[in-house]
Amino acid sequence: MIYPKSLSDSINYLKKLPGIGEKSAERMALSIIDMDEDTVKELANALNNCKLNLKKCSICGSLTENEVCEICQLSEDNYRNKNLICVLEDYKSVFAFEKSGKFDGVYHVLGGLISPMNGIGPDDINLSSLIKRVNDLDNPEIIVALKSTIEGEATTLYIKKIFEGKSVKISRLSYGIPMGMDIDYLDELTLLNALSDRKEIS
Amino acid sequence: MIYPKSLSDSINYLKKLPGIGEKSAERMALSIIDMDEDTVKELANALNNCKLNLKKCSICGSLTENEVCEICQLSEDNYRNKNLICVLEDYKSVFAFEKSGKFDGVYHVLGGLISPMNGIGPDDINLSSLIKRVNDLDNPEIIVALKSTIEGEATTLYIKKIFEGKSVKISRLSYGIPMGMDIDYLDELTLLNALSDRKEIS
Repeated sequence: MIYPKSLSDSINYLKKLPGIGEKSAERMALSIIDMDEDTVKELANALNNCKLNLKKCSICGSLTENEVCEICQLSEDNYRNKNLICVLEDYKSVFAFEKSGKFDGVYHVLGGLISPMNGIGPDDINLSSLIKRVNDLDNPEIIVALKSTIEGEATTLYIKKIFEGKSVKISRLSYGIPMGMDIDYLDELTLLNALSDRKEIS
Repeated sequence: MIYPKSLSDSINYLKKLPGIGEKSAERMALSIIDMDEDTVKELANALNNCKLNLKKCSICGSLTENEVCEICQLSEDNYRNKNLICVLEDYKSVFAFEKSGKFDGVYHVLGGLISPMNGIGPDDINLSSLIKRVNDLDNPEIIVALKSTIEGEATTLYIKKIFEGKSVKISRLSYGIPMGMDIDYLDELTLLNALSDRKEIS
């Protein structure tokens, strides 16, 4: 054993974090020793609180420390458009959308995608509450923002079908070339999607 | 504010770790939410213990959870050569040496380098205990393994001077080309060192 136990324990736990290999975990654990005691205590507490304090928003399923998340609360107070619902797979996507800073509607987090292969059906994801939310609205609009995989497509089509015949406007994000990406690095499917979703140059 | 407080707290503290930027800290904090509660608690405890339990070995100044580190203990029990002392700047270098797995002597951690520019003199680093250790040995050998900076050189020469006239064998690590490095990427000083430290091809 090269490291004292406290150190190797820290390294082993840090390695469980995404993108952290042996070398990074070592560097991080060693830097902990050089930090002051309060900072380490606060870091440890912050990680614990992250796990203990965060729960699902009772309206949209996103992460919050309260009963209702900040975004849903803003929509209740009419600061955001509650008639425009963006449907997402997980709460991580909520943060990605919020960072763009351009969306003033609300979110609905499914917590998964329909995947018959993995035994995940429509009842296993957060769809019934979406139907309830939409039914309570006047002129609702849904933007389905799911990834372009078989499961994402299946879920998108299922949502489309649920609201068929009802006065609900439904769209999905466009598929295409990510910003800054070289065309020759694109996979075939992305290229085909970008081709079929092409837009007239105005 | 995009993130709930618990999450942004974690992100801010994780960013204090070396090599962790905004993006990595976000990814790590979000992954904490998906971990089970016990693992997060153990991670937090491991980090705290890392800070609280580790102290300096009373003999060599390396990190340990006990009074004497494992390496010094092994040398006391004659499993390692206590007459061969490798002098290092910090405990991180101890771990680097131990990983190589080829050194069977002991270490002495200075905890700094002599740097008149920064007001760090010989009395500010762990030198007096080195002198005491060496004086207690028969046929001691010292390998000075400090980095090739002005401070490293100054400290190496100072150590050489301390033991001048005494029957202490003193060497330093060779300077030269690191493994796998292209010659045209080397800085001038490394190249000059590699040139003057050149070895006959046998």
